[in-house]
Amino acid sequence: MGEITIKDIARLCNVGVSTVSRAINNHPDITAETKQRIMDTIQEYGYVPNNSARNLKRTDAKCIAILVKGMTNPFFADMIQVMEECIQKKKYAMVMRHVEFDEDEVDIALELIKEKRLRGIVFLGGYFHSNEKLEKIQVPFILSTVGCPPENMSRNLYSSISVDDCKESYRMTEYLICQGKRRIAILTATEEDGSIGSMRLQGYRNALAAYGIEERPALIRYMHSGRAEYSMENGYSLTQELINLNEEFDAIFAISDVMAIGACRALHDSGIRVPEDISVAGFDGLTMGDYFIPAITTMRQPAVEMAHATMEQLFAVIGGKKEHQHIVFEAQLLEKESVKKALERIAEME
Amino acid sequence: MGEITIKDIARLCNVGVSTVSRAINNHPDITAETKQRIMDTIQEYGYVPNNSARNLKRTDAKCIAILVKGMTNPFFADMIQVMEECIQKKKYAMVMRHVEFDEDEVDIALELIKEKRLRGIVFLGGYFHSNEKLEKIQVPFILSTVGCPPENMSRNLYSSISVDDCKESYRMTEYLICQGKRRIAILTATEEDGSIGSMRLQGYRNALAAYGIEERPALIRYMHSGRAEYSMENGYSLTQELINLNEEFDAIFAISDVMAIGACRALHDSGIRVPEDISVAGFDGLTMGDYFIPAITTMRQPAVEMAHATMEQLFAVIGGKKEHQHIVFEAQLLEKESVKKALERIAEME
Repeated sequence: MGEITIKDIARLCNVGVSTVSRAINNHPDITAETKQRIMDTIQEYGYVPNNSARNLKRTDAKCIAILVKGMTNPFFADMIQVMEECIQKKKYAMVMRHVEFDEDEVDIALELIKEKRLRGIVFLGGYFHSNEKLEKIQVPFILSTVGCPPENMSRNLYSSISVDDCKESYRMTEYLICQGKRRIAILTATEEDGSIGSMRLQGYRNALAAYGIEERPALIRYMHSGRAEYSMENGYSLTQELINLNEEFDAIFAISDVMAIGACRALHDSGIRVPEDISVAGFDGLTMGDYFIPAITTMRQPAVEMAHATMEQLFAVIGGKKEHQHIVFEAQLLEKESVKKALERIAEME
Repeated sequence: MGEITIKDIARLCNVGVSTVSRAINNHPDITAETKQRIMDTIQEYGYVPNNSARNLKRTDAKCIAILVKGMTNPFFADMIQVMEECIQKKKYAMVMRHVEFDEDEVDIALELIKEKRLRGIVFLGGYFHSNEKLEKIQVPFILSTVGCPPENMSRNLYSSISVDDCKESYRMTEYLICQGKRRIAILTATEEDGSIGSMRLQGYRNALAAYGIEERPALIRYMHSGRAEYSMENGYSLTQELINLNEEFDAIFAISDVMAIGACRALHDSGIRVPEDISVAGFDGLTMGDYFIPAITTMRQPAVEMAHATMEQLFAVIGGKKEHQHIVFEAQLLEKESVKKALERIAEME
């Protein structure tokens, strides 16, 4: 079956092409009956009006790629939805590609550039170590929630949107210390991680040092690579390891809410109460954490605002209206139910 | 900068093109030093070997689209990951597009067909009412977890993968009845829903009727449209409505685990214990439900198996190896912690 054109519709309805066009575009100068007849014919023959076909041609040439590391991360899901809306509003097409933990996002980007006519790239999560490879990306790109890349990377190559992972992790650890915790375990990324995981670990270390608290290597639990990272499963099994260690701890700081939920469940399954016996804190500020029982005390990253900022900045660079920028958002400490506060402890002792 | 070719690499390394090819393809007949020198040059100049460029060209013409209704649904996230892997293995490209609740997935499919050279389409979730529009889709397509479309739809137009939503919902309601529940509330889709929501509601109604239990309209709570459907928020607010009704109920059957989690939290916030005071059951079998406290009793859909079957069936139709089929999977009732069992009640009374 050949493609139905506006001429075919006109012929089938015994009207001129301009009348069909008027019907499609809701012009007033056409009778209701004729319009109905034309629209019925359009429906019947599955004709797609030309203007939307033209739009599609146009958008096909203007495409933004989003490369997502860790696809099942619910923190990213919220951000992607906002980004998709922004891209549609700008009449760009979107390609989304998930990057497995053992894949290199820059290699994938370079392939996509060859395949599609990309105007810009968003890297959502991921690991970036060297200028060398990034320099090969010939379209504007932005690192979103990747954490600050190493000092030696030329910051005029790309834009970035992030929180200060080291600082915000310091703040959470400090908060736990202020609630009287002294043996704070951390559930962090793999030992080799050079991304947000290592920055959040550094923040934890800095806070302990600032308060004169000795670092206990056994209380630093690194994710198992190979398993889904930043998952409930990983939070659960790392916490089981902690429990089996016989090294005392009074709080767990999980570097994601998803892992914090896994930690709570592991404690629960061992008959340990949260927060009465052990306090648990997370990071991200997922909606899910609010519904969990107990609700997860967390460091909220403003996901929606960061997603909007990502697209605004990328489109500004594409449009030549702005230079590359590195925008750092403030996180917000949300005191929920999973951390026992010092005041409560004191009240209990009295 | 022009595109770097294999000839440029050969020239830069003072070797022949075949030597470069040998280095890339890990041939044994090349010295380690030469190979290293070639690979360094390839890296330095950002050359992408031809075979992967050729693959990309090929995959560009062979594309599968996945249209997802309800992007933040974690049930779909797991399925998408499996589908993506299957598509990559087949050397096809993948386009993913999220369909908003007020968008028509068939219209979007028709646009995509014009834009890309699609070989096949997966509809993940969504609403399908008429043959008329589906007939316009000129490439093989499959409805995955959409529920059985209405009787009047020609079943040789497309394939489908689903559970029997009506039957599985009946089974869950029957299970609750067998645990001694008589006033079972249901949190279901919008009143206008003609998809899995209405089928799961029908299963609930059939079970009540089969056991001679009067249906109480107040205990049927329809989702608010406009708000994110199948969300924790929706489960929470529907449960709050239930609590405020002063209509007695002893169990809540939420037609998704995500809504069941919202329901549990709303009960908790009103000082109502789950399952001691009220039992809560979900549907889907999300991993998340296992980590929640209490773990959610649910009807598990075999998401991974269904995702594999979706791609196998679609590729079989594309390859001309199979006719369209409608494959129905069995769900599995998982007894977790959120439903109080009859035996426990009896033990308590003694």
